[in-house]
Amino acid sequence: MKTLTVDLGDRSYPIHIGPGLLAAGERIAEVLPAPRAVLVTNETVGPLYRASLQEALAGAGVSLLTTVEVPDGEAYKTLATLESVYDALLAARADRQTAVIALGGGVIGDLAGFAAATYQRGVPFVQVPTTLLAQVDASVGGKTAVNHPRGKNMIGAFYQPRVVVADTDTLDTLPDRELRAGFAEVVKYGVIRDAAFFEELEQQAGAILGRDPTALAEAVYRSCRNKAEVVAADEREAGQRALLNLGHTFAHAIETGTGYSAWLHGEAVSAGMVMAAEASHRIGLLPGEALTRIRTLLDRAGLPVAGPADLPVERYLELMGVDKKAEGGRVRYVLLEDIGRAFVSAEVPEEVIRAAIAACS
Amino acid sequence: MKTLTVDLGDRSYPIHIGPGLLAAGERIAEVLPAPRAVLVTNETVGPLYRASLQEALAGAGVSLLTTVEVPDGEAYKTLATLESVYDALLAARADRQTAVIALGGGVIGDLAGFAAATYQRGVPFVQVPTTLLAQVDASVGGKTAVNHPRGKNMIGAFYQPRVVVADTDTLDTLPDRELRAGFAEVVKYGVIRDAAFFEELEQQAGAILGRDPTALAEAVYRSCRNKAEVVAADEREAGQRALLNLGHTFAHAIETGTGYSAWLHGEAVSAGMVMAAEASHRIGLLPGEALTRIRTLLDRAGLPVAGPADLPVERYLELMGVDKKAEGGRVRYVLLEDIGRAFVSAEVPEEVIRAAIAACS
Repeated sequence: MKTLTVDLGDRSYPIHIGPGLLAAGERIAEVLPAPRAVLVTNETVGPLYRASLQEALAGAGVSLLTTVEVPDGEAYKTLATLESVYDALLAARADRQTAVIALGGGVIGDLAGFAAATYQRGVPFVQVPTTLLAQVDASVGGKTAVNHPRGKNMIGAFYQPRVVVADTDTLDTLPDRELRAGFAEVVKYGVIRDAAFFEELEQQAGAILGRDPTALAEAVYRSCRNKAEVVAADEREAGQRALLNLGHTFAHAIETGTGYSAWLHGEAVSAGMVMAAEASHRIGLLPGEALTRIRTLLDRAGLPVAGPADLPVERYLELMGVDKKAEGGRVRYVLLEDIGRAFVSAEVPEEVIRAAIAACS
Repeated sequence: MKTLTVDLGDRSYPIHIGPGLLAAGERIAEVLPAPRAVLVTNETVGPLYRASLQEALAGAGVSLLTTVEVPDGEAYKTLATLESVYDALLAARADRQTAVIALGGGVIGDLAGFAAATYQRGVPFVQVPTTLLAQVDASVGGKTAVNHPRGKNMIGAFYQPRVVVADTDTLDTLPDRELRAGFAEVVKYGVIRDAAFFEELEQQAGAILGRDPTALAEAVYRSCRNKAEVVAADEREAGQRALLNLGHTFAHAIETGTGYSAWLHGEAVSAGMVMAAEASHRIGLLPGEALTRIRTLLDRAGLPVAGPADLPVERYLELMGVDKKAEGGRVRYVLLEDIGRAFVSAEVPEEVIRAAIAACS
């Protein structure tokens, strides 16, 4: 097991990464103010891991008041599903000291985290991510949210967990498609701030996607270390945290434009990163060779490097106009000077964005 | 105009109190990061004051993207109404810098505040309270929430406004019943921590309820000063802030038990304070004379000193069991040693609670 700390003063918390951690109930018990919790999971992950986690928690003296199993998928990250979580918390008479534990991928973490942030104005929260995407990104940093038909993650809160427990063994049951989708966010850290990591990923992509345990655990650790550094420096996205959104403005348009069902988040991020790299190249910043390396690594990983064929450029622009990154009507894009060097700009000409999307459609 | 500060480090904010403040748009403009806002009000207050506030804001350079007018009443402080506010914010393309301004009573402040806390993970928030209850209590301190059928304020967040603008002229149009309901919370400050204020209220009750402008403004100021001190010392209710809940455990049972429609919050708090005082007297703490003074002051103000005749004691206990103040299954009560001296106890025998409720039914 390796442990990192997200350094946020009195809201600092550990991230434990390694095999077999679902059995380590004491890693959760030690951060809770009271020995009781409610588990939130989905109908895919629940049957696989809820029993082991419940047993480990019981062994550490923590009892589960109830387990909420919601349908699987981004399409269910809604206010309606959130309301069903509140109903379950109240039916179980969960009080202010009762923890909410998220067991699942990014959707479960976002949904359960927002429920924890807002149930009785905030109860303790624990992340047990079981997908690569959640282990390297969604579970760290305290962003919680649900979607609105008009935009992804439009309703949410910044709310930090008490601990993140990333059991890399749970990735064994992850479908290949989801493993690839998570890999897109791993690549993102290399692209925005860690050129050495990007190079290693070019070497290790085969081992990671082939589920080599050591390569996987190392990729999770390096990703979390990058994310923890960014979050510690800028918890509420006033500055450099926005760089983590590389490709996300395009990706959110793809996800919203396809109803949150056809594309996985990581797949949309992959296509969105290529669009951002294209735009960066077209305004004369990112060298063509770097653009090619990014596109090639994602393509080799079986990830999409273009958006959905049936989503017109106009629809992207419309959807990006209400994206949260918009300020005063202007869209702020994360662009690249090189691999490992990203920045934010609100000055990108609309023609460049149109051309970048068109080049990747 | 008098100004107080709620001292919360980098989240400190001013409370401006006085006549004519709706016209002082610059008091709001000066705290906003961008000159745009969305107004949330209700169908009663909106027609009275929205035009003046909009004009004052325009004069200070702040434009309103839209105004959301929700139905009037606690019965509408729901997730469904909240969703209609999100819809309006998105339809108006409100971004992260767009402020949400609450113009109305406690329901509007709680609802709009929770919308501001969660829209795009938090946007700037401004309180313009127009009821006595909101001016002396709800608008100060950052508690925001909506109700759930199983309990009041069960879904919410701690989220501080950037400024509170309490125009005491707006109390002129407040119905007598609501003025009295707000007076219950004024009395509460005297009872829990300010015996001198309680004595003054015994002298000034007639002038305040007769809407004497000086007496009203002084009551608002003294109440806000008490609340600001408590909130600054304990923002998230880990300790003394809980004392502000005097009578509220009983009051929430009354409100939930009567469907949030028959009783105003302040009326329920009045009856609940008498129940808490009764319980405090019955366990041998609060002198009988003090109990009588509390009951008499509230009764003279035309406030209820007993709960609804048709709410059985059993139903109170059932509803209080899921109240947020419950911890580990035990209900924590705010009790009194004397006027001006309150404390929290989780050790109150159930018989005492039953007897106190029965004595006030």
